[in-house]
Amino acid sequence: MDWQAKVKIQLKENLLDPQGQAVGESLAALGYENVKETRVGRYIELKLEDVESQSQAEEQLEEMCERLLANPVIEDFRFQVEELS
Amino acid sequence: MDWQAKVKIQLKENLLDPQGQAVGESLAALGYENVKETRVGRYIELKLEDVESQSQAEEQLEEMCERLLANPVIEDFRFQVEELS
Repeated sequence: MDWQAKVKIQLKENLLDPQGQAVGESLAALGYENVKETRVGRYIELKLEDVESQSQAEEQLEEMCERLLANPVIEDFRFQVEELS
Repeated sequence: MDWQAKVKIQLKENLLDPQGQAVGESLAALGYENVKETRVGRYIELKLEDVESQSQAEEQLEEMCERLLANPVIEDFRFQVEELS
């Protein structure tokens, strides 16, 4: 079975997010002063082929996030896995 | 009312995604050879304060995506807006 993975990676909550701040300030400069708490992260989509079950797909994805996709020291990650028909 | 916005920004489907390819190749080098079609984009979360309705919040977010958050020439965006209690 094949699976579609959607991964969101963000800086840990307590860390300063300069990129998020810069985007927030740019939005305010464009007149959107009601925008607060802007946080910028990465969004990754990928396909996992030939994996027997959802739990195995999630296990593989967890491992890939910890080893490569996210930096566990400063980032948190969340993901969804959906079976591809 | 305040709203939590979650925005996903990706390169348009038909465009080459060198970053996605690099991540895919790195995953394969780590032994994850069943990973295909890796695409890397941006994920932005922000709060919209004092907006009367969901449709107004979505309208504002659409505008901000088109003007600043995404590059409409090469990127597509999708978003969700949820009311904050």
